[in-house]
Amino acid sequence: MLGRLNHVAIAVPDLDQGIRTYRDVLGAKVSAKQAEPNHGVTVVFVELPNTKIELLEPLGEASPIKGFLEKNPSGGIHHVCYEVEDIIQARDRLKAQGARILGDGEPKIGAHGKPVLFLHPKDFTGTLLELEQA
Amino acid sequence: MLGRLNHVAIAVPDLDQGIRTYRDVLGAKVSAKQAEPNHGVTVVFVELPNTKIELLEPLGEASPIKGFLEKNPSGGIHHVCYEVEDIIQARDRLKAQGARILGDGEPKIGAHGKPVLFLHPKDFTGTLLELEQA
Repeated sequence: MLGRLNHVAIAVPDLDQGIRTYRDVLGAKVSAKQAEPNHGVTVVFVELPNTKIELLEPLGEASPIKGFLEKNPSGGIHHVCYEVEDIIQARDRLKAQGARILGDGEPKIGAHGKPVLFLHPKDFTGTLLELEQA
Repeated sequence: MLGRLNHVAIAVPDLDQGIRTYRDVLGAKVSAKQAEPNHGVTVVFVELPNTKIELLEPLGEASPIKGFLEKNPSGGIHHVCYEVEDIIQARDRLKAQGARILGDGEPKIGAHGKPVLFLHPKDFTGTLLELEQA
């Protein structure tokens, strides 16, 4: 069922500092900043040859990464996103095995314009997982 | 400087449970268990089309992931490993920019038989980074 690793998302308290770290210190290619008000984040993509890293900074008062950054003030790895071919089929397979889907269990359109779901960390080795229909 | 994302390492309290989650629930290909006494972990590789996930369980009393699991009893993402062409050149470039290398700053032979270094999370957006010479 699991396809490619689409991205690793790292929450950062200061996106400009994160950009400097990845672009200037680590010498990676970093995209322009992109505000995603519907998702409560501003994001840049660190482009690697085989996948990407997303650096996320909170945007707005209801940002979903606000609590995470309160617990991890220097930043940290927030989630991992795997691609699946068919997100409804994937969700139904996971639910049938007792895994919990976050929210109302219906796919939302994610930051890449594709349907996504988030899975409960307690059911997945303590890790917040995102599934994205490729 | 940064090359491919070599792997994402997830520390788990119970490797058999982690294997079931990735193999049976998520439907991924998972390798046989491999004990790495020199690194204080038992590991399996979750093989994705473009990279891999490593599930790490502590092995022995001095396991380097023991403290992490005390703080994160359900498990969690422990580090991200990027490939570099020349690890000495990479290290020297990072040091020249003030970044801290963990340990004595000399590459060790990692779990894949290649030279690796770990970088200080505080200098890298709160994230433990491993560099591996590809």
